[in-house]
Amino acid sequence: MLRFDCDYTEGAHPKILEKLMATNYEQTVGYGEDDYCKKAAEIIKEKCSRDNLDVHFFVGGTQTNLTVISAALRPHQGAITAITGHINTHETGAIEATGHKVLTAPSTDGKITSHQIQAIYDNHYKDSSPEHTVQPKLVYISNPTEIGTIYSKTELTAISETCKKNNLLLYMDGARLGYGLCAEGNDLDLQSIAKLCDAFYIGGTKIGALFGEALVISNSTLKSDFRYFIKQKGGLLAKGRLLGIQFTTLFEDDLYYDMSNHANEMATLIKNAFIKKGYKFLSASNTNQQFPILPNEVIEKLKSNYIFSYWEKVDENHSAVRFCTSWATKKEAVLKLIASIENI
Amino acid sequence: MLRFDCDYTEGAHPKILEKLMATNYEQTVGYGEDDYCKKAAEIIKEKCSRDNLDVHFFVGGTQTNLTVISAALRPHQGAITAITGHINTHETGAIEATGHKVLTAPSTDGKITSHQIQAIYDNHYKDSSPEHTVQPKLVYISNPTEIGTIYSKTELTAISETCKKNNLLLYMDGARLGYGLCAEGNDLDLQSIAKLCDAFYIGGTKIGALFGEALVISNSTLKSDFRYFIKQKGGLLAKGRLLGIQFTTLFEDDLYYDMSNHANEMATLIKNAFIKKGYKFLSASNTNQQFPILPNEVIEKLKSNYIFSYWEKVDENHSAVRFCTSWATKKEAVLKLIASIENI
Amino acid sequence: MLRFDCDYTEGAHPKILEKLMATNYEQTVGYGEDDYCKKAAEIIKEKCSRDNLDVHFFVGGTQTNLTVISAALRPHQGAITAITGHINTHETGAIEATGHKVLTAPSTDGKITSHQIQAIYDNHYKDSSPEHTVQPKLVYISNPTEIGTIYSKTELTAISETCKKNNLLLYMDGARLGYGLCAEGNDLDLQSIAKLCDAFYIGGTKIGALFGEALVISNSTLKSDFRYFIKQKGGLLAKGRLLGIQFTTLFEDDLYYDMSNHANEMATLIKNAFIKKGYKFLSASNTNQQFPILPNEVIEKLKSNYIFSYWEKVDENHSAVRFCTSWATKKEAVLKLIASIENI
Amino acid sequence: MLRFDCDYTEGAHPKILEKLMATNYEQTVGYGEDDYCKKAAEIIKEKCSRDNLDVHFFVGGTQTNLTVISAALRPHQGAITAITGHINTHETGAIEATGHKVLTAPSTDGKITSHQIQAIYDNHYKDSSPEHTVQPKLVYISNPTEIGTIYSKTELTAISETCKKNNLLLYMDGARLGYGLCAEGNDLDLQSIAKLCDAFYIGGTKIGALFGEALVISNSTLKSDFRYFIKQKGGLLAKGRLLGIQFTTLFEDDLYYDMSNHANEMATLIKNAFIKKGYKFLSASNTNQQFPILPNEVIEKLKSNYIFSYWEKVDENHSAVRFCTSWATKKEAVLKLIASIENI
Repeated sequence: MLRFDCDYTEGAHPKILEKLMATNYEQTVGYGEDDYCKKAAEIIKEKCSRDNLDVHFFVGGTQTNLTVISAALRPHQGAITAITGHINTHETGAIEATGHKVLTAPSTDGKITSHQIQAIYDNHYKDSSPEHTVQPKLVYISNPTEIGTIYSKTELTAISETCKKNNLLLYMDGARLGYGLCAEGNDLDLQSIAKLCDAFYIGGTKIGALFGEALVISNSTLKSDFRYFIKQKGGLLAKGRLLGIQFTTLFEDDLYYDMSNHANEMATLIKNAFIKKGYKFLSASNTNQQFPILPNEVIEKLKSNYIFSYWEKVDENHSAVRFCTSWATKKEAVLKLIASIENI
Repeated sequence: MLRFDCDYTEGAHPKILEKLMATNYEQTVGYGEDDYCKKAAEIIKEKCSRDNLDVHFFVGGTQTNLTVISAALRPHQGAITAITGHINTHETGAIEATGHKVLTAPSTDGKITSHQIQAIYDNHYKDSSPEHTVQPKLVYISNPTEIGTIYSKTELTAISETCKKNNLLLYMDGARLGYGLCAEGNDLDLQSIAKLCDAFYIGGTKIGALFGEALVISNSTLKSDFRYFIKQKGGLLAKGRLLGIQFTTLFEDDLYYDMSNHANEMATLIKNAFIKKGYKFLSASNTNQQFPILPNEVIEKLKSNYIFSYWEKVDENHSAVRFCTSWATKKEAVLKLIASIENI
Repeated sequence: MLRFDCDYTEGAHPKILEKLMATNYEQTVGYGEDDYCKKAAEIIKEKCSRDNLDVHFFVGGTQTNLTVISAALRPHQGAITAITGHINTHETGAIEATGHKVLTAPSTDGKITSHQIQAIYDNHYKDSSPEHTVQPKLVYISNPTEIGTIYSKTELTAISETCKKNNLLLYMDGARLGYGLCAEGNDLDLQSIAKLCDAFYIGGTKIGALFGEALVISNSTLKSDFRYFIKQKGGLLAKGRLLGIQFTTLFEDDLYYDMSNHANEMATLIKNAFIKKGYKFLSASNTNQQFPILPNEVIEKLKSNYIFSYWEKVDENHSAVRFCTSWATKKEAVLKLIASIENI
Repeated sequence: MLRFDCDYTEGAHPKILEKLMATNYEQTVGYGEDDYCKKAAEIIKEKCSRDNLDVHFFVGGTQTNLTVISAALRPHQGAITAITGHINTHETGAIEATGHKVLTAPSTDGKITSHQIQAIYDNHYKDSSPEHTVQPKLVYISNPTEIGTIYSKTELTAISETCKKNNLLLYMDGARLGYGLCAEGNDLDLQSIAKLCDAFYIGGTKIGALFGEALVISNSTLKSDFRYFIKQKGGLLAKGRLLGIQFTTLFEDDLYYDMSNHANEMATLIKNAFIKKGYKFLSASNTNQQFPILPNEVIEKLKSNYIFSYWEKVDENHSAVRFCTSWATKKEAVLKLIASIENI
C-alpha cells in the first residue's frame, strides 16, 4: 500500500535528523531561549525583510491557532473565517474552548473575500445595541486553504485593507505555506505576507520537519507578553532548541522551498493524470493537495493499492477524495499511481 | 561553563535518535494511531502489569496536566495540591485557564498527606451550603516532587484510600518518575502506582527523550472520549509515531531505568560533596535534583564556572540553589564540580 | 408613542407587586432555600404532574441557558441548535464563553427537525476519528421560537426520541413558554414537555414577572450539584425568595396562562389587521410576536406613532418587522394600531 | 426566632417598593438603556463629583466581580486579593471559571497592604522568565471587608499609588459599602474612592434594595465595550429600569446612608453588649457585621432564640460567630438580643 493520505506520513527530511544528531550533546537553556531559536528567528525575519517582527516556535498547528487567537481577543470578541476554515471544522472546538465564537462566511473555494468580511463587520454594527452579538475582531485565513487553493496578492491586499479600516486583526494559518508560495500562479511571498498580516505562521510539520510551526507577529499589541500565552496553553517546548534547529535547517539553503516544489511537482503529475481521464476537481488547486471527483467504483478500485482520504459526497455516484504529496513522495510511487489512474 | 540547571539541557539519548533515523522513511498514519504508539502502549501496560489501562502520549508536561485535569473535572470542581505543586506554581495558571481552581495545602517537603486531603474535603462539606465554595474532586501529586522528595508506598496507599473513600480522583505527575523509582529508599514501582492512581504520567522529556510524556489512565470514567481532549487542547501530535518510537526505545531494555540510575548516581556524588562541606539541604532528596543551602558568596563563586538554578532565599546570607543531573551528565563534569565544592 | 417592541416594556403584573409588598418584612434565609421557593417548586412540579423534578430559579434567560448548557457538557461537547436559536444569535457568545461550540442547522421557521439532529449526529460519527470535531451532546430548542412558531407534540416527540436514541440531552428554552402553550393550534402542555425534555425553563421575565425563569430538570445526571453551577456563574440571587414569590403568584390561579392568553389575543388582532391589508409574514406565528413583511415606506410611516422592532431585510423594498404584545398591552393601544394599519 | 444571620433576610426598603409600584405601567426600553438608569447613573456620578465615570447596574455581587475581573484581564493575568477575599472564598471559583488565577496574600484583618501588593509584584518580576507564573494585574479589595473592617484613606491611597506605579488595576468590592462609609472612624467617601480606584461597586442588595449593585468605572481602558461583557455573562437585566429605579431611590434624599447608619447603630448596640460581658472579637469592626468570639455553650444557648452565622473555630471551646444588622433590623429585636446576652 502506498500512502497519499496526508503530508505527514514520514519522519523528517534527513538534513533535519542530521542536524539533531550533530547538536545532540550541546548544552542549551530550555524553553526556546537558546541560540538556535534566536538564529532561526533571525533567518525568518531576514526572509520577511522586516526587523520589527517577533518569532515564536510551536509544536503544532492547533496549538498555534488557539494560542494566537485567544491572546488576540478580549472575551466578547470572535474570529471570522470561511466556513471551511480549519478552526471551524477540525480542531474540536479549540477556539471555543478558549471562550470565543467562530464567525463563519460561506465559501466554496476555501477562501473568504474582503467583501464578506466587510459585510460581517457592518452587520454587527448596524445594530444600535451590538452588545447582544459577538464582536468580530480577527480574521482567520489559511493559505493554502484546506482545499488547496491560494490567495492572490490582490485578494490578500484587499482583505488586509478591509481589516485595517475596521480595526480587525488579520491572521494567516500557514500550515502548508511553502506549498502555496511555490504553487503555479502564486504571487505572494514572505515579505508581502509579513506586511499584510498581523500574524501568520510558517508550517513545518507538513513540510518536512519532525514537527514545528514558526509564528511571525508584526502587530505590536499582539506581541506583548506572548510567551506567557504559549506557556499557559501548554505549548512551550522544554527542549525548545529542537524547533530552532529544525527551522534553521529548513530556511538555510532554501530547503523549505525545495521540498515544497518537489511536492507540488508530484501533485501536478497526479492532477494531470486525472485531468487526462476527464475527471473534474473539487477545487482549483496547484498545491500539494488534489481533490479529484471520482465515481465511487473508481475510488473503491484505487483503494486496493493506495491510501488516500475520502473528502465528501458530491452526488449519489461520485465523491471527492484527497491525494496528498510531500517532500518524501517518491516519483516511482507517483508513476505507479498514474499508471493505475490511466488503467481505470 | 558546565550546566547543571536542569535535566533537559541536551537532546536525547542516542538510541532514540538512531531509532528515529531507522524509521524515518516508513509511512504511518498520523495522530498516534500508528503501530509504534500501539507497541509503546503495550509495553507500558506490561510494565504496569495491568490490561485495563489506556495509554496516551503527549509532547509536554503542562499540556498533559491541563488536559487530564480539565477532562476530569466538572466546572465547579477543583484540584487539590501541595502549595509547591507544579500546577500551582509554574504553569502560568494553565489549570485556571481551563476554568478550575487549584486548592492548596501547606507543605515544606513538597508532599501532601492523606490527612490534609481529608481535612480539605471535610472542610468543604462541613458547610450546609457547600455550593458557595469550589468542590474538591481531584488530588494532584508529583513524584518525585518539585524539590526531589518521593512518596513511600505507605504514603501513597493512604492517599489513594482517602481519595477512594471520598470519591476523589488521584493523579500523579511523573515528569521525573524514573528518578523517583530508582531513588535510594524508594519502594514504589509502576505496578503499585498504576493500581493506586486513577491516572499518572511517565515523563520522557526530562529523562532522555527529545520530548514526550506517557499518560496512563486506569479510571474508566476518565478514559471515555479522551482523544477529543488531547486534540482540543492542541496536544495531538501529527507525527504521533515520534512519541511511540521514543517510548518504545525508553522501555525496551530498561533504558529508562538505566538513565535514571545514572542521573541519580551523579546527583548523589554532588550531594555528598556538599554534605562533606557541612552544608544543609532544602529537602531530603535522593533523586536527580539536589537543593543545597549555600552562603551567598559561595553561590557567586560557583557561578563563575557552573550554571545552576537559584531556588529561594533562606536568610539574609543563605539561599537554596538547585543542581540537576540527567542521562547526559558526564562524570568528569561532576568530578570538576566536586573539586570546586571541596575548594570552597 | 406606543411601544410594541418587546414583551418587557412594563414592570410586573400588579398581583406580583402586591405579593412582594405583603411579604416584605418577613425574614427568610437567602439564596433560594426559603419556603417561597420551595412552594413555587412544588406548584410547578404539580403542574408538570411529576415528582422527580428539580426546580431552580434564575433571574434571566441568558444566565439560565449558559448555566444549564455548561453544566451539561464536558469540554469537547457542543450544543445543537437551529441557526436562528437565541444562544447562536443574541447572547454575545455566552455559550462559547463557557468553552462550548454551538452547532447549527439551517432553519427558515425557527425550528429544528429530528432529521436534522440525526444528520448532525451521524455526520460526526461517520468519521473514523471523530475526535477532530466537536461531539454533539445537547439539543437546544426554543418554544415558541425566536420568530414565534411552536413545536407540535409530534415534532417534540420525534426530537425527544432521536435524542434518547443517540444519548443526546434535550433542553427547551421557554422564555415565552406561556405564549406557546396558549397559542391556537398548540397541543403541548407542561406535562408532556417535562416528560419529553431533560430540562426546560418556564419564562417569567417576558410573561408578567419583574424578572425570573424557572428551570425544571428531569434528567438525574444533570441534577447533581446544580446549585454550584448557579452560584459560580453569578446566578444565585441573594434574596432568592423574590423568585419564589413571583412564581407562586404566576402559577396560583393560573395567572400565567391568563396573561399569556391576553397577549396572544392582542397579537391576533394585530395579525388579522395586517392580513386584511394583504401583507405576508416572516413566520406562521400564533403567539405574542408577529412578523409582518411591510413595504419600507409603510414601516417609516408607522414609526411616527409606534415603536416596534426592525427584524430583517426581505428585499430592496420590503422588510420584516416585529410587533410584540404582553400582559400589559392595552386593547385601546391595539385598536389604535389597527386603525393606523387600516389607514395605510 | 429572630434572624441576625445576614443583611438580606427581608425584602426592600418600602420607598423602593413604592417607587416600583408608581412606575409599573410606564413603558421603557429594556436592558438598562432607559431614563431611570440614566438618572441613577447621573446621581451616582454627582455623588462621586466626577464626570468621566461609567456606571453599570448588576443584579448581584458575584456577577459583578466576575464580569469586571474577566473584562479587565488578559488570559495570563491574575487578581491579587487578601486570602479572605470573597472572590477567593465564597464564589465557587467564579473568577477561575473565567480563566484567571486568584493570587492571595495572608491576612488576619481582612485587608491587604500596599506592601504585600508590591511584594507579590516584585516576586513575579524577579524571575528572568516570569512567563512561567501568572502575571499579577488587578488588585481586588472589599470595603468593608468580609469581616467588617474598613480601609483608611491613608491605606487606600498607598494601595492606589502602588497599583498606579506598577500598572495594576485597583477594584473595590463594595457589597456593603454604605456600612463602611458610615462607620465610626471612616475617612473615605465616594469621591475619594472614585478617584483612587479604577473601578468599584456600590452594593444595593445588602443595603436595602431588592437587589442591585452599581458598578462605577473610572479607568478608560476598562470602560470600552463593557456592555458586551455584562450581556455575555448573563448579567444584562431585561427590565433594566428596575435597577435604575432602585438606585435613584437609594441616592435621592440619602436613603442609602440613613439605612447604613441605622444598621451600624444597631450593630454597635450588640457589640457593646458583648464587650460589656468581656468577650473578644475576631475583628475590629465598626460596621453592620460583628464577630464576637464566644464559648461554644453560649453559642448553643443563643441559638435557641436567634439565628446567626457560625464563622470559625477559635479554639477547642470557643468559636467566632457573626451577627448582622440591616435597614430592617428592629430596635426591639436588638434589645431582646442584648437582654439575652446580658443574661448569659
